[in-house]
Amino acid sequence: MKALLLVAHGSRRKQSNDEVVLLAEKLKSQCSQQYNIVNAAFLELAEVLIPDGIKQCVTDGATSIVVLPYFLNSGRHVVEDVPNIINDCIGQYPDIEISLAPHLGASDLMMDLILSSAKSAKAV
Amino acid sequence: MKALLLVAHGSRRKQSNDEVVLLAEKLKSQCSQQYNIVNAAFLELAEVLIPDGIKQCVTDGATSIVVLPYFLNSGRHVVEDVPNIINDCIGQYPDIEISLAPHLGASDLMMDLILSSAKSAKAV
Repeated sequence: MKALLLVAHGSRRKQSNDEVVLLAEKLKSQCSQQYNIVNAAFLELAEVLIPDGIKQCVTDGATSIVVLPYFLNSGRHVVEDVPNIINDCIGQYPDIEISLAPHLGASDLMMDLILSSAKSAKAV
Repeated sequence: MKALLLVAHGSRRKQSNDEVVLLAEKLKSQCSQQYNIVNAAFLELAEVLIPDGIKQCVTDGATSIVVLPYFLNSGRHVVEDVPNIINDCIGQYPDIEISLAPHLGASDLMMDLILSSAKSAKAV
Protein backbone atom coordinates (compact mmCIF):
# COMPACT_ATOMS: atom_id res chain seq x y z
CA MET A 1 0.00 0.00 0.00
CA LYS A 2 1.59 3.25 -1.17
CA ALA A 3 0.87 6.53 0.58
CA LEU A 4 1.53 10.13 -0.38
CA LEU A 5 1.72 12.62 2.48
CA LEU A 6 1.41 16.22 1.36
CA VAL A 7 3.18 18.43 3.91
CA ALA A 8 2.34 22.14 3.92
CA HIS A 9 3.51 24.86 6.27
CA GLY A 10 0.17 25.39 7.96
CA SER A 11 -1.58 28.70 8.40
CA ARG A 12 -3.56 30.53 11.07
CA ARG A 13 -6.12 30.96 8.31
CA LYS A 14 -8.31 27.85 8.31
CA GLN A 15 -9.23 28.28 4.65
CA SER A 16 -5.58 27.92 3.57
CA ASN A 17 -5.24 24.66 5.48
CA ASP A 18 -8.54 23.42 4.09
CA GLU A 19 -7.21 24.02 0.56
CA VAL A 20 -4.33 21.64 1.24
CA VAL A 21 -6.63 18.99 2.69
CA LEU A 22 -8.93 19.40 -0.31
CA LEU A 23 -5.99 19.02 -2.68
CA ALA A 24 -5.00 15.79 -0.92
CA GLU A 25 -8.57 14.52 -1.32
CA LYS A 26 -8.55 15.45 -5.00
CA LEU A 27 -5.23 13.64 -5.48
CA LYS A 28 -6.65 10.62 -3.66
CA SER A 29 -9.64 10.39 -5.93
CA GLN A 30 -7.76 11.02 -9.17
CA CYS A 31 -4.44 9.26 -8.56
CA SER A 32 -5.50 6.05 -6.87
CA GLN A 33 -3.47 4.06 -9.40
CA GLN A 34 -0.23 5.58 -8.08
CA TYR A 35 -1.17 6.05 -4.41
CA ASN A 36 -3.68 4.06 -2.40
CA ILE A 37 -3.57 6.62 0.39
CA VAL A 38 -3.18 10.40 0.18
CA ASN A 39 -3.16 12.51 3.32
CA ALA A 40 -2.22 16.06 4.26
CA ALA A 41 -0.19 17.22 7.25
CA PHE A 42 1.31 20.49 8.46
CA LEU A 43 4.67 21.62 9.78
CA GLU A 44 3.06 23.94 12.29
CA LEU A 45 -0.02 26.04 13.10
CA ALA A 46 -2.52 23.43 11.91
CA GLU A 47 -3.61 19.88 12.54
CA VAL A 48 -2.56 17.23 11.80
CA LEU A 49 1.15 17.72 12.38
CA ILE A 50 3.68 15.67 10.39
CA PRO A 51 4.22 12.85 12.95
CA ASP A 52 0.46 12.33 13.18
CA GLY A 53 0.19 12.47 9.40
CA ILE A 54 2.72 9.65 9.09
CA LYS A 55 0.94 7.71 11.82
CA GLN A 56 -2.35 8.16 9.94
CA CYS A 57 -0.81 6.75 6.74
CA VAL A 58 0.45 3.71 8.69
CA THR A 59 -2.95 3.26 10.35
CA ASP A 60 -4.53 3.46 6.88
CA GLY A 61 -2.33 0.51 5.88
CA ALA A 62 0.64 2.15 4.15
CA THR A 63 3.76 0.05 3.65
CA SER A 64 5.57 2.89 1.89
CA ILE A 65 5.11 6.64 2.37
CA VAL A 66 6.30 9.45 0.14
CA VAL A 67 6.43 12.74 2.05
CA LEU A 68 6.10 15.69 -0.31
CA PRO A 69 6.89 19.22 0.94
CA TYR A 70 4.22 21.52 -0.51
CA PHE A 71 6.57 24.51 -0.47
CA LEU A 72 7.81 26.80 -3.24
CA ASN A 73 11.19 27.78 -1.82
CA SER A 74 14.03 25.75 -0.39
CA GLY A 75 14.01 27.60 2.92
CA ARG A 76 14.90 26.27 6.36
CA HIS A 77 11.57 24.44 6.60
CA VAL A 78 12.35 22.40 3.50
CA VAL A 79 16.07 21.94 4.09
CA GLU A 80 16.04 21.27 7.84
CA ASP A 81 12.69 21.17 9.61
CA VAL A 82 10.73 18.67 7.50
CA PRO A 83 13.68 16.22 7.08
CA ASN A 84 14.44 16.45 10.83
CA ILE A 85 10.86 15.66 11.78
CA ILE A 86 10.79 12.71 9.38
CA ASN A 87 14.09 11.45 10.77
CA ASP A 88 12.71 11.64 14.28
CA CYS A 89 9.72 9.52 13.17
CA ILE A 90 11.24 6.75 11.10
CA GLY A 91 12.60 4.80 14.09
CA GLN A 92 9.00 4.08 15.12
CA TYR A 93 8.21 2.44 11.80
CA PRO A 94 11.08 0.07 10.93
CA ASP A 95 8.92 -1.87 8.46
CA ILE A 96 7.68 1.16 6.53
CA GLU A 97 9.67 2.63 3.67
CA ILE A 98 9.55 6.41 4.16
CA SER A 99 10.96 8.64 1.44
CA LEU A 100 11.13 12.38 0.94
CA ALA A 101 10.30 14.09 -2.36
CA PRO A 102 11.84 17.38 -3.52
CA HIS A 103 9.78 20.44 -2.64
CA LEU A 104 7.39 21.68 -5.32
CA GLY A 105 9.49 24.67 -6.35
CA ALA A 106 12.29 22.36 -7.48
CA SER A 107 10.15 20.74 -10.18
CA ASP A 108 11.03 21.05 -13.85
CA LEU A 109 7.30 21.39 -14.48
CA MET A 110 7.11 24.66 -12.54
CA MET A 111 7.79 26.75 -15.65
CA ASP A 112 4.99 24.99 -17.54
CA LEU A 113 2.65 25.62 -14.64
CA ILE A 114 3.59 29.31 -14.51
CA LEU A 115 3.08 29.77 -18.25
CA SER A 116 -0.22 27.93 -18.08
CA SER A 117 -1.45 30.12 -15.19
CA ALA A 118 -0.25 33.25 -16.99
CA LYS A 119 -2.49 32.38 -19.95
CA SER A 120 -5.53 32.63 -17.64
CA ALA A 121 -4.73 36.21 -16.62
CA LYS A 122 -7.65 38.63 -16.56
CA ALA A 123 -7.70 42.42 -16.76
CA VAL A 124 -7.50 44.08 -13.35
CA MET B 1 6.11 43.90 -25.93
CA LYS B 2 4.64 41.39 -23.45
CA ALA B 3 5.91 41.18 -19.90
CA LEU B 4 5.43 38.58 -17.18
CA LEU B 5 5.89 39.79 -13.61
CA LEU B 6 6.34 36.98 -11.11
CA VAL B 7 5.20 38.20 -7.69
CA ALA B 8 6.36 36.25 -4.63
CA HIS B 9 5.79 37.01 -0.95
CA GLY B 10 9.39 37.91 -0.19
CA SER B 11 11.48 36.45 2.59
CA ARG B 12 14.02 37.64 5.17
CA ARG B 13 16.16 34.85 3.78
CA LYS B 14 18.01 36.23 0.78
CA GLN B 15 18.40 32.79 -0.79
CA SER B 16 14.63 32.35 -1.06
CA ASN B 17 14.29 35.68 -2.87
CA ASP B 18 17.21 34.82 -5.12
CA GLU B 19 15.42 31.61 -6.13
CA VAL B 20 12.47 33.65 -7.40
CA VAL B 21 14.73 36.04 -9.32
CA LEU B 22 16.57 33.05 -10.79
CA LEU B 23 13.28 31.46 -11.82
CA ALA B 24 12.29 34.70 -13.58
CA GLU B 25 15.61 34.69 -15.42
CA LYS B 26 15.12 31.06 -16.42
CA LEU B 27 11.63 31.86 -17.70
CA LYS B 28 13.01 34.84 -19.60
CA SER B 29 15.61 32.73 -21.38
CA GLN B 30 13.32 29.81 -22.14
CA CYS B 31 9.99 31.50 -22.85
CA SER B 32 11.00 34.50 -24.92
CA GLN B 33 8.44 33.51 -27.57
CA GLN B 34 5.59 34.14 -25.12
CA TYR B 35 7.11 36.97 -23.07
CA ASN B 36 9.72 39.49 -24.16
CA ILE B 37 10.25 40.59 -20.59
CA VAL B 38 10.16 38.52 -17.39
CA ASN B 39 10.82 40.15 -14.03
CA ALA B 40 10.36 39.24 -10.38
CA ALA B 41 8.91 41.40 -7.61
CA PHE B 42 7.91 40.92 -3.99
CA LEU B 43 4.90 41.76 -1.85
CA GLU B 44 7.09 42.60 1.14
CA LEU B 45 10.42 41.97 2.86
CA ALA B 46 12.47 42.05 -0.36
CA GLU B 47 13.32 44.28 -3.27
CA VAL B 48 11.93 45.08 -5.73
CA LEU B 49 8.42 45.67 -4.46
CA ILE B 50 5.45 45.22 -6.81
CA PRO B 51 5.05 48.88 -7.90
CA ASP B 52 8.74 49.02 -8.82
CA GLY B 53 8.45 45.67 -10.58
CA ILE B 54 5.65 47.07 -12.76
CA LYS B 55 7.65 50.25 -13.36
CA GLN B 56 10.64 48.13 -14.41
CA CYS B 57 8.52 46.21 -16.94
CA VAL B 58 7.30 49.52 -18.40
CA THR B 59 10.86 50.89 -18.50
CA ASP B 60 11.90 47.68 -20.27
CA GLY B 61 9.33 48.50 -22.96
CA ALA B 62 6.30 46.44 -21.93
CA THR B 63 2.96 47.34 -23.51
CA SER B 64 1.16 44.55 -21.65
CA ILE B 65 2.03 43.04 -18.27
CA VAL B 66 0.75 39.78 -16.77
CA VAL B 67 1.20 39.77 -12.99
CA LEU B 68 1.43 36.22 -11.66
CA PRO B 69 1.17 35.59 -7.89
CA TYR B 70 3.78 32.95 -7.05
CA PHE B 71 1.73 31.67 -4.11
CA LEU B 72 0.31 28.25 -3.30
CA ASN B 73 -2.71 29.27 -1.24
CA SER B 74 -5.46 31.77 -1.84
CA GLY B 75 -4.78 33.68 1.36
CA ARG B 76 -5.25 37.36 2.06
CA HIS B 77 -2.11 38.20 0.08
CA VAL B 78 -3.53 36.64 -3.08
CA VAL B 79 -7.14 37.70 -2.61
CA GLU B 80 -6.60 41.26 -1.34
CA ASP B 81 -3.04 42.54 -1.08
CA VAL B 82 -1.67 41.82 -4.56
CA PRO B 83 -4.84 42.96 -6.43
CA ASN B 84 -5.01 46.12 -4.27
CA ILE B 85 -1.40 47.04 -5.03
CA ILE B 86 -1.96 46.45 -8.75
CA ASN B 87 -5.13 48.56 -8.64
CA ASP B 88 -3.21 51.38 -6.99
CA CYS B 89 -0.64 51.24 -9.80
CA ILE B 90 -2.70 50.99 -12.97
CA GLY B 91 -3.73 54.65 -12.99
CA GLN B 92 -0.11 55.60 -13.64
CA TYR B 93 0.01 53.49 -16.80
CA PRO B 94 -3.14 54.21 -18.81
CA ASP B 95 -1.56 52.88 -22.02
CA ILE B 96 -0.36 49.59 -20.55
CA GLU B 97 -2.63 46.56 -20.38
CA ILE B 98 -2.12 45.07 -16.92
CA SER B 99 -3.71 41.71 -16.12
CA LEU B 100 -3.62 39.41 -13.12
CA ALA B 101 -3.15 35.64 -13.39
CA PRO B 102 -4.55 33.12 -10.90
CA HIS B 103 -2.12 32.14 -8.15
CA LEU B 104 -0.06 29.00 -8.79
CA GLY B 105 -2.01 26.80 -6.40
CA ALA B 106 -5.15 27.23 -8.51
CA SER B 107 -3.61 25.56 -11.55
CA ASP B 108 -5.00 22.33 -12.95
CA LEU B 109 -1.39 21.29 -13.54
CA MET B 110 -0.63 21.27 -9.80
CA MET B 111 -1.59 17.63 -9.44
CA ASP B 112 0.74 16.64 -12.31
CA LEU B 113 3.52 18.61 -10.69
CA ILE B 114 2.94 16.93 -7.32
CA LEU B 115 2.91 13.45 -8.83
CA SER B 116 6.04 14.23 -10.83
CA SER B 117 7.88 15.48 -7.73
CA ALA B 118 6.69 12.48 -5.73
CA LYS B 119 8.36 10.18 -8.28
CA SER B 120 11.73 11.75 -7.38
CA ALA B 121 11.42 10.89 -3.69
CA LYS B 122 14.50 9.47 -2.02
CA ALA B 123 14.85 7.38 1.14
CA VAL B 124 15.31 9.52 4.24
